[in-house]
Amino acid sequence: MPLRSLTYCTENNAVQIIDQTCLPGELKIIELSKLDDFCRAISDMQVRGAPLIGITAAYGLALELGRNPDLDNLARASARLTATRPTAINLGWALRRLEAVVEAVDEADRFAAALGEAHAIAEEDVANCRAIGDHGLQMLRTMSEAAHGSAINVLTHCNAGWLAALEWGTALAPIYRAHEQGMPLHVWVSETRPRNQGAKLTAWELAQAGVAHTVVADGAAGYLMQTGRVDCCVVGSDRTVANGDVCNKVGTYPKALAAKANGVPFYVALPLSSFDWSCSSGADIPIEERGAEEVLACEGRDPSGESVRVLIANADSPGFNPAFDITPASLVTGLITECGIVAAEPAALRALRAEIQTS
Amino acid sequence: MPLRSLTYCTENNAVQIIDQTCLPGELKIIELSKLDDFCRAISDMQVRGAPLIGITAAYGLALELGRNPDLDNLARASARLTATRPTAINLGWALRRLEAVVEAVDEADRFAAALGEAHAIAEEDVANCRAIGDHGLQMLRTMSEAAHGSAINVLTHCNAGWLAALEWGTALAPIYRAHEQGMPLHVWVSETRPRNQGAKLTAWELAQAGVAHTVVADGAAGYLMQTGRVDCCVVGSDRTVANGDVCNKVGTYPKALAAKANGVPFYVALPLSSFDWSCSSGADIPIEERGAEEVLACEGRDPSGESVRVLIANADSPGFNPAFDITPASLVTGLITECGIVAAEPAALRALRAEIQTS
Repeated sequence: MPLRSLTYCTENNAVQIIDQTCLPGELKIIELSKLDDFCRAISDMQVRGAPLIGITAAYGLALELGRNPDLDNLARASARLTATRPTAINLGWALRRLEAVVEAVDEADRFAAALGEAHAIAEEDVANCRAIGDHGLQMLRTMSEAAHGSAINVLTHCNAGWLAALEWGTALAPIYRAHEQGMPLHVWVSETRPRNQGAKLTAWELAQAGVAHTVVADGAAGYLMQTGRVDCCVVGSDRTVANGDVCNKVGTYPKALAAKANGVPFYVALPLSSFDWSCSSGADIPIEERGAEEVLACEGRDPSGESVRVLIANADSPGFNPAFDITPASLVTGLITECGIVAAEPAALRALRAEIQTS
Repeated sequence: MPLRSLTYCTENNAVQIIDQTCLPGELKIIELSKLDDFCRAISDMQVRGAPLIGITAAYGLALELGRNPDLDNLARASARLTATRPTAINLGWALRRLEAVVEAVDEADRFAAALGEAHAIAEEDVANCRAIGDHGLQMLRTMSEAAHGSAINVLTHCNAGWLAALEWGTALAPIYRAHEQGMPLHVWVSETRPRNQGAKLTAWELAQAGVAHTVVADGAAGYLMQTGRVDCCVVGSDRTVANGDVCNKVGTYPKALAAKANGVPFYVALPLSSFDWSCSSGADIPIEERGAEEVLACEGRDPSGESVRVLIANADSPGFNPAFDITPASLVTGLITECGIVAAEPAALRALRAEIQTS
């Protein structure tokens, strides 16, 4: 991991992010300082991934309080950040944490308190992702031992690597940890239309880290599984609810169905901050619908290396672009959290929640 | 249907085809006369779709016999055409029909006999697709009546319209027949990466015919079904075997799994020429693997309307591109053939085969 997806700059009270809409063609670092910058960075997906959305929103709110620590301004800024993207629960979770801290102190201390909490959220995320990596590593090691040294084939969807968090990532954390230890691995990267976060971001991350990988069309995951080419699936989550239903990037659910049908273990890696305990079932999760142009067109590099958006679809045909889907708990082998691998079922999740609350 | 996907030109012993690699941006008609032209048109997918591949190969073989009616040349030409694409059974089926006819006549009559058989295959295909449309129409009408006039939402994958046959198509034939009759319909068009035949060809066909439709990413089909937006799925097939397993464009199988999980009927429309009775199970079907560049890149129109291929994926990341997958018979509600809707199970298919052989 050569750098973090987001860095706070003390000298000018701003954060630097990798503009993820420019990857893999260009590693462009941009600075966010105003609330507008933060809102646009999240809604335009310059930053994306549930943990990173939460961290970015936390810094955005903290910096806005540096400008104006008034509680009315806190409420307005929080509402604006909340409206940027509806599905990833980490956004609201991070903002609630900052609000609670800020409301408890005097106006003069609010900026420092908020910034401290944003730093805490960021550092906790690094530790949590590292712990997710350690727990997932145990699972991969068991598979690797059973395979007697043959490479384990892991299928992932979208990007749940360090670009989606600060370091390590969620779904990719176990893969990075295993690769560090010399375990032979190969990752099937589902391209993840319409925005191609798999082909663009996950493939770039894995290439940077030297992890063997192959990009496939989203529709090919079923074929890979029915021909025995996948040992396990590991994906991230934007929100997982009390009954174990998992919301993740659209296209996750069909892969979970194919995994179940072919006896392939299907794991979801996520920090506890991605749980929505107030939601009893996946059907209650708000699913973001993004612009149809993302489906009808595709962005890439032309032969000269220029970034170009090309229209794929028949001109004037309409499109529909739900960004997430729901994988029912019954299709999930286990939830890899910083507290260990937990069954995706209400009783196990109630016990996990009780454990967190008492600790 | 303003034109056919392929037309024989008596005056110059050639066939005209729509170059489907140029759609939807350009309706380009090209002429095929030499065996090389035919082989390239099939392997480069200027023509595609199981029925049209068979018809094109038949004309290619007939015209080659016009040049040299020797039986050694027949064998050589047939072998070359057979090698263009491995999965669609109609290719071999059409060539076997021509070979049988040609081998039974004197050298002087071979061209005329082969050409006559190619014409027969073509005209039978039109009639078969029309009959598939009629049988599928009954199924849609039952759904439409149950919906009390609300639009029926049909999901399809890839292109199994008239571009994939000569007229009507297979999966789209019932939709065209229903639309003709004023039945309210809406078609979900799965874009079908990596070559986007859904977004490019099916959307174009449906727009031409005035059928309401919406393009979605391949991964979105599960979400559409889990939120009750799909009344039935209808797809085509490149080869269906004796036990009812269906081979079709990669990405079909995950849709069938999602349909089964959500109680959505899943139909496969195909002429009897797409059955491979010699294959006992889908696992025995050869699955074409096409070039990885199809997955790593995407072709479309830039803002000036020029056709451009853009690299989507991380540079130097490898890709894997299986072109088809297998949908197990257990996921198929019915096979819509020119002889009616048949259950995808061995006994029903044995009875169908016996009926064909005695008729």
